[in-house]
Amino acid sequence: IIIIKFSISEKTFKNIIKNLLPYSKCSEKTRLFLMEIFEILMKHISKTFDRKCKILDFHHPHQLLDGIEGFSLEITGEAESLEQILVDCRDTLKYGVKTGHPRFFNQLSSGLDIISLAADWLTSTANTNMFTYEIAPVFTLMEDVVIRRMCSIIGWEDGEGIFSPGGSINNLYAVIMARHYVMPEVKYDGMRGFPELVMFQSKHAHYSNKRPGAVLGIGLKNCIDIEVDDKGRMIASDLELKILQSKLAGKVPFYVTATAGTTVIGAFDKIPEISGICKKYGVWLHVDAAWGGAVMMSQKHRHLVTGIELADSVTWNPHKMMGVVLQCSALLTRHKGILESCNEMNADYLFQQDKHYDVTYDTGDKTIQCGRHVDVFKLWLAWRAKGDAGFEKHVDRCIELSRYLVRKIRKTRGFELVNPEPEYANVCFWYFPPCIRNLSDETIKHEKLNKVAPLIKSRMMENGTIMIGYQPLGSKVNFFRNIVSNPAVDYDDIDFIITEIERLGRDI
Amino acid sequence: IIIIKFSISEKTFKNIIKNLLPYSKCSEKTRLFLMEIFEILMKHISKTFDRKCKILDFHHPHQLLDGIEGFSLEITGEAESLEQILVDCRDTLKYGVKTGHPRFFNQLSSGLDIISLAADWLTSTANTNMFTYEIAPVFTLMEDVVIRRMCSIIGWEDGEGIFSPGGSINNLYAVIMARHYVMPEVKYDGMRGFPELVMFQSKHAHYSNKRPGAVLGIGLKNCIDIEVDDKGRMIASDLELKILQSKLAGKVPFYVTATAGTTVIGAFDKIPEISGICKKYGVWLHVDAAWGGAVMMSQKHRHLVTGIELADSVTWNPHKMMGVVLQCSALLTRHKGILESCNEMNADYLFQQDKHYDVTYDTGDKTIQCGRHVDVFKLWLAWRAKGDAGFEKHVDRCIELSRYLVRKIRKTRGFELVNPEPEYANVCFWYFPPCIRNLSDETIKHEKLNKVAPLIKSRMMENGTIMIGYQPLGSKVNFFRNIVSNPAVDYDDIDFIITEIERLGRDI
Repeated sequence: IIIIKFSISEKTFKNIIKNLLPYSKCSEKTRLFLMEIFEILMKHISKTFDRKCKILDFHHPHQLLDGIEGFSLEITGEAESLEQILVDCRDTLKYGVKTGHPRFFNQLSSGLDIISLAADWLTSTANTNMFTYEIAPVFTLMEDVVIRRMCSIIGWEDGEGIFSPGGSINNLYAVIMARHYVMPEVKYDGMRGFPELVMFQSKHAHYSNKRPGAVLGIGLKNCIDIEVDDKGRMIASDLELKILQSKLAGKVPFYVTATAGTTVIGAFDKIPEISGICKKYGVWLHVDAAWGGAVMMSQKHRHLVTGIELADSVTWNPHKMMGVVLQCSALLTRHKGILESCNEMNADYLFQQDKHYDVTYDTGDKTIQCGRHVDVFKLWLAWRAKGDAGFEKHVDRCIELSRYLVRKIRKTRGFELVNPEPEYANVCFWYFPPCIRNLSDETIKHEKLNKVAPLIKSRMMENGTIMIGYQPLGSKVNFFRNIVSNPAVDYDDIDFIITEIERLGRDI
Repeated sequence: IIIIKFSISEKTFKNIIKNLLPYSKCSEKTRLFLMEIFEILMKHISKTFDRKCKILDFHHPHQLLDGIEGFSLEITGEAESLEQILVDCRDTLKYGVKTGHPRFFNQLSSGLDIISLAADWLTSTANTNMFTYEIAPVFTLMEDVVIRRMCSIIGWEDGEGIFSPGGSINNLYAVIMARHYVMPEVKYDGMRGFPELVMFQSKHAHYSNKRPGAVLGIGLKNCIDIEVDDKGRMIASDLELKILQSKLAGKVPFYVTATAGTTVIGAFDKIPEISGICKKYGVWLHVDAAWGGAVMMSQKHRHLVTGIELADSVTWNPHKMMGVVLQCSALLTRHKGILESCNEMNADYLFQQDKHYDVTYDTGDKTIQCGRHVDVFKLWLAWRAKGDAGFEKHVDRCIELSRYLVRKIRKTRGFELVNPEPEYANVCFWYFPPCIRNLSDETIKHEKLNKVAPLIKSRMMENGTIMIGYQPLGSKVNFFRNIVSNPAVDYDDIDFIITEIERLGRDI
């Protein structure tokens, strides 16, 4: 046996010896260490759901970088003791943000679903990769089962899909597929020498629907914004107009994104109308249902995505309204086989065709990744635990709580809705502090109003009591966008939104 | 308070009531459920490191899909009891592959590092997203700290980077950056109207270095393979020749991938020579060190990547030779600011410039993703626990064990090395069963040899005792590629490779 020598400090040596266990054994000490971690996590989960606990203990970047009460982010290169590692874990959670807190309304993804959390712990512990059945037999099959179920919920008899790291990557996939569908030669020959491609999305679509234009060599100038109506929905006639304009310019319209649940307003584009135009001009229809796809689980709200089965591809993120922990995002298409035909590279070392089992489930050649994180298990397990009805309840409850907020806002002086009739779980509104309510000069009033949301947001974060996002939109100055996607939210929490904004903003 | 009604089966109703807890509470029942999960995971960890346990209990896809001993992958839409959910978790692990088993030599990523596993559990529990400091203050800063350290280890005074979902995506990023560097107009105008771009990689480079050619609209025909020498390293003179040829054809050579640790052979391209050519012709040099980057942590082996600081960008996967659990992959570049300039889309709703804190750490606009999984914490915590020296020991030990295998193979009748002097932790070899050793007809011998590795591999999987990958390479018929990247491997396990292959293959 060969002895390996290396020179290290005494402290590091001591700690490496002490820490040797976690390398490669499952000793009693490993168990104790992981038990301690478990206790830290349980304490965090308990605080997450406790309204008496702050959502965050805000510090500025320079404060955290300088180190607070012994919590240092630095990596010195020295090995720390396991005791210190446990302290690091505690502090990492302490100075973070509790996204599962019932008063965190800041993001489309929120909540802390215990079932999918357990599933994600298991996924980490299984520590495998999605590319082949060989090393992920159960997970690759689960993906197939779940994808087939999602396709059938959309309304497709057949179809395929994959889980990829987030809606943006999935929207990128969709454009790759559509380009391959219309110009398969591009894969080998490149874009040069082919007519210019043009893609369309509404002004309110998520920016990741446009970015593929920059990435794929199509050019952002060929990503055309379509006007929206007063509810934030794509205006079909403007789409047709712009398709015709680009055809007249000798370009090839090939791709339209309809959004099911826009990021800010929560609007649902009218799919049947848009699909009609797409069919007329032979254009691929992608539905970005990253945020709104969950309504397919609800009998009450499914009408919002009527016609989704007419799409060529769909992005649907169960880590948003379905509560699955991050990340869990699916790309689905009714064109079976297209993922492989546009992405396959036939790597011999990974996808041997002389394997002794059926290699249909070696999914690696469908993706633009090689290794791929196991994201399906979280959804599979949550689905088994909750059933269709559990997801339905989740969606219905979050939308109902949002409607309740709408009713509150209508009744409360100083608050005004940006969109008078929200259809989903986004509620956008302004708060007018007393000092600006009666200003008669509209320009000055809006200039002042524009500063209100950022100021109140900063107070929210410093107080740690509540978090709600804000942004401007087109000509509309900064407003709050409240999201309910966490089933831990209750009616009292909605009441709290109003009272807390008043408390924090009254004196502005 | 509004009562929500929905119609569900009695079984589902009962289970939803029972399962309500995991939605949104941290009750004693939640704790008990997660304790049970913890026990299941501890049992799996213990089995993972136990050589008496099988690596896998192999079943064909149709068997798993049909259901084995009550384990069903189906999603019926009904809610199952929490008891059933626990059984599902147990079975998911039971029919999976223990990638941390000391006799799993199948993949570049292996092992089950307890520190980074704990970190990944914490990451799931924190359930947040990397796009803004606002919702991930600690993690965004940690990423900055870790990226700066990795840049300085490469040898760059300055630089930037991000963690993205795997080496393939990072190699894609690198090409996007390089294209932006040479033709920034493409982002807005698209590829049409610009001269044809050409990129180069060795024949042995990972296929993800070529795929960006298909994705970005460059075309696979413009991804030129460079010849390799007998050690699997790119031949610099062939690179220069092919650069000149493409220039003569009126094309623009803009990108070269040098590989540090090729996937099959484990070869390291000679970076200084390649960099010289890149500089001469003004071409971006990317080093794909996904697999080999870890040698930078070792004084003994760092020489393999001499000159890596000359690169414009580097892909480096700590989830491979540094043992961090999946996924943890970094893209690094010395061109500070380029990630943002090529990828920014300035989404108002996310990256408000009127926030009350320093928005430098809002990293979302650097990426082609929007939400991004927290991958840095696993590495940060492992680095704190092990120090530089811990990683050094890891790398040195895995390479030493591989050298030991090489010595064994040289001494053992029936085994033959594919590459006589492996430099890294890949050991490629053929096993000649007795019946073909003395065949005089080389064609027949190789035809038969080509079938040996797949057959032994199938026996390995059915026995569950060991897993080693195999593949052909160029004119070389199927051979085994043994990887040691798991520090749980010991000398006895290397001895076992030889005896087990002989046991399984002797009778062929």
